[in-house]
Amino acid sequence: MNAGHVVPRMAAVSAPARVARAGDGIGVQELALAGRNHALPLEALRHEVTPAGLHYVLTHYDIPPTDPARWRLTVHGRVGNPLNLSLAALRSLAAVTLRVTMECAGNGRAQLSPRPVSQPWLDGAVGTAEWTGVPLRALLAAAEVAPGAVEAVFTGADHGVERGVEQDYRRSLPLAVALDPERTVLVAYGMNGGPLPPQHGSPLRLVVPGWYGMAAVKWLCEIVLTDTPFTGFQQAVAYRYRRTADEPGEPVTRIAPRALLIPPGFPDFMSRTRVVRPGPVLLEGRAWSGHAPVARVEVSADAGHSWYDAELAPAGAHPWAWRHWRCPWTAEPGEHVLAARATDAEGRTQPVHQHWNRGGFGNNAVQRVPVVCL
Amino acid sequence: MNAGHVVPRMAAVSAPARVARAGDGIGVQELALAGRNHALPLEALRHEVTPAGLHYVLTHYDIPPTDPARWRLTVHGRVGNPLNLSLAALRSLAAVTLRVTMECAGNGRAQLSPRPVSQPWLDGAVGTAEWTGVPLRALLAAAEVAPGAVEAVFTGADHGVERGVEQDYRRSLPLAVALDPERTVLVAYGMNGGPLPPQHGSPLRLVVPGWYGMAAVKWLCEIVLTDTPFTGFQQAVAYRYRRTADEPGEPVTRIAPRALLIPPGFPDFMSRTRVVRPGPVLLEGRAWSGHAPVARVEVSADAGHSWYDAELAPAGAHPWAWRHWRCPWTAEPGEHVLAARATDAEGRTQPVHQHWNRGGFGNNAVQRVPVVCL
Repeated sequence: MNAGHVVPRMAAVSAPARVARAGDGIGVQELALAGRNHALPLEALRHEVTPAGLHYVLTHYDIPPTDPARWRLTVHGRVGNPLNLSLAALRSLAAVTLRVTMECAGNGRAQLSPRPVSQPWLDGAVGTAEWTGVPLRALLAAAEVAPGAVEAVFTGADHGVERGVEQDYRRSLPLAVALDPERTVLVAYGMNGGPLPPQHGSPLRLVVPGWYGMAAVKWLCEIVLTDTPFTGFQQAVAYRYRRTADEPGEPVTRIAPRALLIPPGFPDFMSRTRVVRPGPVLLEGRAWSGHAPVARVEVSADAGHSWYDAELAPAGAHPWAWRHWRCPWTAEPGEHVLAARATDAEGRTQPVHQHWNRGGFGNNAVQRVPVVCL
Repeated sequence: MNAGHVVPRMAAVSAPARVARAGDGIGVQELALAGRNHALPLEALRHEVTPAGLHYVLTHYDIPPTDPARWRLTVHGRVGNPLNLSLAALRSLAAVTLRVTMECAGNGRAQLSPRPVSQPWLDGAVGTAEWTGVPLRALLAAAEVAPGAVEAVFTGADHGVERGVEQDYRRSLPLAVALDPERTVLVAYGMNGGPLPPQHGSPLRLVVPGWYGMAAVKWLCEIVLTDTPFTGFQQAVAYRYRRTADEPGEPVTRIAPRALLIPPGFPDFMSRTRVVRPGPVLLEGRAWSGHAPVARVEVSADAGHSWYDAELAPAGAHPWAWRHWRCPWTAEPGEHVLAARATDAEGRTQPVHQHWNRGGFGNNAVQRVPVVCL
């Protein structure tokens, strides 16, 4: 359970983290990531529950080959009763279905200046699904958590190299989060009523309501309870808020508030600029926060000079899912920049200009949607 | 049925086609396209039939909102018996299911130098699905093709601007292709046993076996038979092979042969370089051509200096789907560049260096997969 085994010759394939120079376009390595992973096309915000193929996907290494019929999930370490479960055994336990909005911690990274070189997300690395599975706390209760356990460490079957470190994808949660009755961390085998698709972790993944997606380990095969905090690569090296390469930084955890507009009108193919007709236009979208319910969404049609309160859909039965909002607007001929800004019940709001960090994490700067009214 | 209505002020949102300057990285407009559309992650070549969320997606404008319960397909123009069909009426007709490999005409564009500025595909803009629907020739027989009809023009519900031209997405097929008994063009409502997902044309799309994806009009709502060739934007302006902006060029039609390797070993997160262990490695992948069956696949482990014949899977019941191939290799420590090259039964083969064209179409240059054996 250390940061992984650094193989010296792995440096041949694996360069240190870096930020792009001012003015540098997206490089071919970033493009290769952008081509395999994908965002939610923003018009798909119209779906309250995102169809699987439209939900954002981020895979660090390859989507591994998996066989549901032979899959095993082991639970061991600081437990009194280690478990070794087939998928059938998991499916025989009491199941719950939760609607959860998941967002990549790197969403917005490509809009930072200078740009951290990694998966170059603009603003669509988000999606909402109905996840079905077994509450993690039920599994841990069956495994009988031993005294002194402080974290649960989750291992996925995806294997690769990152910054010279060969590893299976592995992340931990504090036991207080893993057992939190408010949050219901899920060991999920279903998505939107069907089995998990390969790219979403088939046959088993973690879902951590309110946390960025790096916590939601896919292709989950092992849970180890430990008596010391996990210091593996994805915990201690990646997914930290830091300004310089050599500071330890703060861990990336919960999702900062964000609102996104369904871009109105129709787009130009290449510029993606939106065209709307003069007259009434209903601006609408969704908003979420991993800290507290969204309490307010404001909309601007003049690039943030003035703001109007949007109407929020009633708080529903899905506290970890995004909330729909709407705001009427009358479009007049000319160019406009639309924007929306979410504030949660604990008073967190979105910045107009992003605070930069070296990993490009937690970038929830206000979305800007240029529109031409013709 | 002309090239579309050019609205002068649309120039404010829509720039002329261009190629990037030497050394220019990918720009933010190309990145926005790369983030909404997506390639097949190449490890998903392991699936004979691509799961829907892994199949490549290219949408020119927005995925339109559609309502299957109210959808109508009209067939009119040069016909004796115009049709106006609900989805239920289409489903009541004799259905066929075809396994078809579909590839974007722009696949490989981002590897060209200079790079045409558009959707920046590397090499994964492909997928194979089981499409279910009604043969187009059955619909046209019911509509009673009138003498003098030469083309069928297909309209999708996706609407946008492209190079200053506001348009619904619209493409035609010569009647000989539309009625071809060998090819079975399909008006499809199903994919892989379920309904079409939104991004694949729900509730109705065209599938044209052997042709690049631009012919497979999604969100299909209208078929018009014409007595003159269609000169709309996507036919006469876009999707032409040309070297200069002002020549008429040749139309983009059928898929050139291509083989792709399932990248062996495991990747580095950022460089995507593959790591393999010394010893036997099974190289495998898939190959296809829209002109004729794939007859040969050769594999190189030294960047194309020497080639070995791969073993092709038996020609099966799916002439329009890719064909699996395999070739054993013994990896020795060091750096290698793997490559695969398909040749079809009519003798077409893949070039090592791509012939450049201004739209970046039909780029089937041999794939190169750098591998480090450690």
